Amino acid sequence: MTLGLIDQAKNSLTNTSWKKLDGYLRETQLLGSIHNALYWDQNTSMPSCAASWRGEQLSFLAKCLHTRQSSTEFENLIKEAREESHLEALKNGIDINNKTRNLDLLELELRRQKKLDSKLVVHLATAQTEGYALWKEAKENNDFKRFAPALKKLIDLRQEQANQLDESRSCWETLAQPFEPDLTIKRLNELFIPLRTRLPELIAKAKAVSSKNLLKWDLDQSSQQKLCELLLNQWGRNKEITSLARSPHPFSITLGPQDFRLTTRVVEGQPFSCFLATAHEWGHSLYEQGLPLQNHQWFAWPLGQATSMGVHESQSLFWENRVARSKAFSDRFWTYFSNEGAPLNSGLDLWKSMNPLLPGLNRVEADELSYGLHILIRTDLEIALLQEGLDVWDLPTEWNKRYKELLGVTPENDSEGCLQDVHWSEGSFGYFPSYLLGHLISAQLSEAMIFSLRKEGVKGEDPIGECIREGNEIKLLEWLRNEVHHYGRQVNAEQLVEKVTGRCLSCNPFLNYLENKLKMLTSS
Amino acid sequence: MTLGLIDQAKNSLTNTSWKKLDGYLRETQLLGSIHNALYWDQNTSMPSCAASWRGEQLSFLAKCLHTRQSSTEFENLIKEAREESHLEALKNGIDINNKTRNLDLLELELRRQKKLDSKLVVHLATAQTEGYALWKEAKENNDFKRFAPALKKLIDLRQEQANQLDESRSCWETLAQPFEPDLTIKRLNELFIPLRTRLPELIAKAKAVSSKNLLKWDLDQSSQQKLCELLLNQWGRNKEITSLARSPHPFSITLGPQDFRLTTRVVEGQPFSCFLATAHEWGHSLYEQGLPLQNHQWFAWPLGQATSMGVHESQSLFWENRVARSKAFSDRFWTYFSNEGAPLNSGLDLWKSMNPLLPGLNRVEADELSYGLHILIRTDLEIALLQEGLDVWDLPTEWNKRYKELLGVTPENDSEGCLQDVHWSEGSFGYFPSYLLGHLISAQLSEAMIFSLRKEGVKGEDPIGECIREGNEIKLLEWLRNEVHHYGRQVNAEQLVEKVTGRCLSCNPFLNYLENKLKMLTSS
Repeated sequence: MTLGLIDQAKNSLTNTSWKKLDGYLRETQLLGSIHNALYWDQNTSMPSCAASWRGEQLSFLAKCLHTRQSSTEFENLIKEAREESHLEALKNGIDINNKTRNLDLLELELRRQKKLDSKLVVHLATAQTEGYALWKEAKENNDFKRFAPALKKLIDLRQEQANQLDESRSCWETLAQPFEPDLTIKRLNELFIPLRTRLPELIAKAKAVSSKNLLKWDLDQSSQQKLCELLLNQWGRNKEITSLARSPHPFSITLGPQDFRLTTRVVEGQPFSCFLATAHEWGHSLYEQGLPLQNHQWFAWPLGQATSMGVHESQSLFWENRVARSKAFSDRFWTYFSNEGAPLNSGLDLWKSMNPLLPGLNRVEADELSYGLHILIRTDLEIALLQEGLDVWDLPTEWNKRYKELLGVTPENDSEGCLQDVHWSEGSFGYFPSYLLGHLISAQLSEAMIFSLRKEGVKGEDPIGECIREGNEIKLLEWLRNEVHHYGRQVNAEQLVEKVTGRCLSCNPFLNYLENKLKMLTSS
Repeated sequence: MTLGLIDQAKNSLTNTSWKKLDGYLRETQLLGSIHNALYWDQNTSMPSCAASWRGEQLSFLAKCLHTRQSSTEFENLIKEAREESHLEALKNGIDINNKTRNLDLLELELRRQKKLDSKLVVHLATAQTEGYALWKEAKENNDFKRFAPALKKLIDLRQEQANQLDESRSCWETLAQPFEPDLTIKRLNELFIPLRTRLPELIAKAKAVSSKNLLKWDLDQSSQQKLCELLLNQWGRNKEITSLARSPHPFSITLGPQDFRLTTRVVEGQPFSCFLATAHEWGHSLYEQGLPLQNHQWFAWPLGQATSMGVHESQSLFWENRVARSKAFSDRFWTYFSNEGAPLNSGLDLWKSMNPLLPGLNRVEADELSYGLHILIRTDLEIALLQEGLDVWDLPTEWNKRYKELLGVTPENDSEGCLQDVHWSEGSFGYFPSYLLGHLISAQLSEAMIFSLRKEGVKGEDPIGECIREGNEIKLLEWLRNEVHHYGRQVNAEQLVEKVTGRCLSCNPFLNYLENKLKMLTSS
C-alpha cells in the first residue's frame, strides 16, 4: 500500500515535465492558429486597404512565434521531458516511441529556429507581405518588372536563411525541408526524370483524340455553389466543424482541433473550376480532420501534424482526380449538373467535359497529363534561381522557353506566364515539387487501396469506381483514415508510402494510371 | 550652424522616449486588433464546435494584453515620455495638451491594469466564453437555470474585479467606467428620472393612434441585401476599407486603421430589421472612421479611440432614427422598397411602417418611444445584481414584474425575457445605459446640427430632413466629422456634448424630439 502510494506520487511528479512542455506547446499552437485565423480572414473578408496593418499583425505574430520556438525555456522543457520519459520507460517498460519521435521533431525544429536571427524572421515576414502586394499589382498590370525587385529581395533573404540554418544540404533543399522533410534533389531527379519523356509522349497521344467537340458553356454562381454544397453533403461534411467561403485562390486551413476551413472560387467560363477546387480542398481538409488530434491530445504536437505537403496533395488529388473526375462519379452526378442547366446528356458527356486533356498555360486549370510538366518547369527554375545563379530578370524568358519546349505553348504575357502563381511572391521556394509528388503518392496509395478493396470483396475491374458508383465514398475515406491519415508525423512521406504499399515510392503507378485513363478516354 | 546641429541631435534624442512608447503601444494595439479579428471571425465564419479552442485563443490574448498593459516597462515608458514632453514644452513652448491627455489616459489605464491579478483576468476571459455558450443553450431551450450558475460566477468575478480596482466608486460604477468614463449613478438618475414618467405617458398617447392597420409582409433575403447595399452605396461606403457580413447579432468593429467591419442579420417576418441594423451599425462605423487616426498616428493612442459607448450609440442612432426612419428618407427611398415587392404606395406608407410605435418585449426591435424603458429596466436590474444583493435566481421574476409595470407586457418565457440580450452572458455590466445616453446625446447633437444648417442657409422647418430629401446626407456626415468625431478621447461624453451644443446634457431634446415625431405620426 505504502509503496503504491509512493509510486503514484512519483508518477505524478515524473509526469510534470511532460505536462509543462505540453502547456508550452499549446500556447505556441494558440499563437500559430491565430496566425492561420488572420490568414483566413485576409483572404475571405478583409477589405483591400487593410493589408498594411494586417502585415504588421502577421509580422508581430511571426516574431512572437520565433521567440517561443527558439527560447531557452523551450530547450530546457524538451530536455526535461526527454529525461522524464526515459526514466518512465526504464521503470515501467512503457513504449515511448511516440513520445521520442515527438521530442526528436521538436528538437529538430528548435535547432533550426535557434540558428535564425530574429531580425531575419521579421524581415522575411515583411518582405512576404510586400512581395504579395507587388505581385498582385504586377499580375494585374502584366508588368513583371514591378515584381522583380521584390522577388530578388525574397530570394536574397531565403538564401540568407539557408545560410543561417547551415544544414548539410544545398540552399534549395534546406528551404524545401519544411514542406517535404528529408527530400533531396537527387531523389527528386530519380522520381521525376522518367516523367520528362513519358508525359510529353502521352500528351502527344492525347492530342490526336482530345475533345475537339467540347461545347463552350457555363453555369451561374448560385448553381455552382449548389453543386458544391451537394458534393460536400454527399461526402459527409459536418457543418459543426467546417466552414466554407470564397477567396481569390482556393485553399484549406485548420484553425483549431475542431475548426476546419476551406475556400473555393468561381471562374467565368470554367463551369468545373469551382466544383473541382471544392473537391480538391475538401481532400486536404479530410487529411487534417483525420490526423491524430485525439481530442486536442496531439494537436499541439508534431505527431498531430501533416507529415509533408506531398502527402497532403496526394489526399486532395485523390478526391479531385480519382473520385470527382472518375467515370463512375460522372455517371452518378451528371443529372445534378444537367438540372442546373449544363448541356449534358449522359455521364459520359460530363466525364469527357471534366477531362479535356489539352495542354495549356495555366497550372491550376491543367489536366492530369500536363500538370506534372508545369511542376517540372517551376522546380527547375526555382533551383536555378536559388543555387545556380539564374538572374531574376531572365525569369520570363526562361519560363517561356521551357513552356515552348515541354508543353508546346507560349504565354502571351507574363501574367499568363511566370506571374501566374502566388508561391514565389510569398517567398515559398521548395513547395512546387510537392504537387507532383502528391500525384505519384496518390496513384501508389490508390493501387494499395484497390488491393484492399478486392480483398474485402468489392468486385469489378475498378473497385474504387464501384464504391463511387454506389455513393459509398465513405468506404474510401475509412481506408484513408485507417491506413494513411492517423500517422501524422510518425513517419515521413516516403516511409509512409512504403508502410502502406510495401514498396518504395515510384512514378510507375502514376504513369500506369494516366495511360489507363487515356486509353479509356480514347476508346469511349 | 553648429548650434543648429546640436539642437537637432537633442531633438531626435528627446524624441526617443515618445517614439519608444509609440512602438510599445503599437504592439499592444496589434494584439488588441488581433483579438477583434478573432471576435469578427467567431461571429461570422467560425463553425460551432470550434468555440472551445477559440475561447483558449482569446484567453491567451487577454493574458498577453494584460501583461503588456500592466508591465513595469510600460510604466517606465510613460514616465520617460512625460518627462520628455515637459522638457520639450519648456524649451520650445509647444502646446502639449494632446500629449498630456494621452499620457494621463494611459496612466489611468495602467493603474487599473496593475491592480488586477492576472489570474482573475484569465478566469474572467474563460468565464465569458463559457457564459456565452451556456447563455446560447439556455436561450435556445428557454431554460434560465442552465445559465444562472454561469451568471452568478460572472457577477462574483466582476465584483472581485471591482474590489481589486479599489476605486472611490461603487461596484457598478467601477465596471461602467470603460464604457462611460466618469459616469456616476447619481448623474444617471438626474438624466433618466424624467424619462420614467414621460416615456410611459407618450406610449399611452401613441397607443391611441398606433398603426393598427399595419400590413403583415416580408421581403426575401436577397432583396433585403440589395436594399442594404443600395443604402450604404448612397451613404458613401468605401469598399476598400469596409467589409460586410452576416452574424446572429449585428455589430460593428474596427480591426485596423483602414479596416472597418460591420454585420447585419435577416429576421423572418421583420422586413426592416436588416435594413435598420445596417443603418445603425454603419453609424457606429462612421464614428470609428472619423476618429483622429491620422494615417495610424493616433491609432494606438487613447486620443484615437471613441470617447464613450454613449457617444458611439448617439452616432449609430442618428443614422438609424434621425436619418433612415425619417419621413424625408422614406419619401426618397420607398420606390426602392416597392421595386423589391414591398406593398407600399407612398413614402408615407414606408415611414409609418418603419415607425410602428408599439411597445413590445424585445429591446433590439423596440421603437423609439419604448426603447428607453427597456434600458431603464436593465440598468436597475444590473445595479441590483451587482451591489444591492438581488439574487440571480430572482432575476426572471424581477424582470417580468418590471416589464409589466413600465411597458405593460409580460414575456411568455425567459428567452423572450431576461435571456434576450447577450451582454450579461459575456459579463458586460454597466453597458446598457450607454444605449439610452446615446438617444439623449443624439437628440441634443441634432439640435446643434439643425442650428448650424440653418446658419448655412438650409431652409425649412427641418433642415436635417431637407438634406436627406436631396440625398445630401454627406452634409450631415461632414458636420459630425468636424464637430464630433475628430475629438476622440480628448474630452469625455458630457464634455463633448457641452463643447458642441453649449449646454449640459439633458433629456429635454430627446423628449422634444419624441413628442414632435409622435405629433407628426398622429396627424398624418
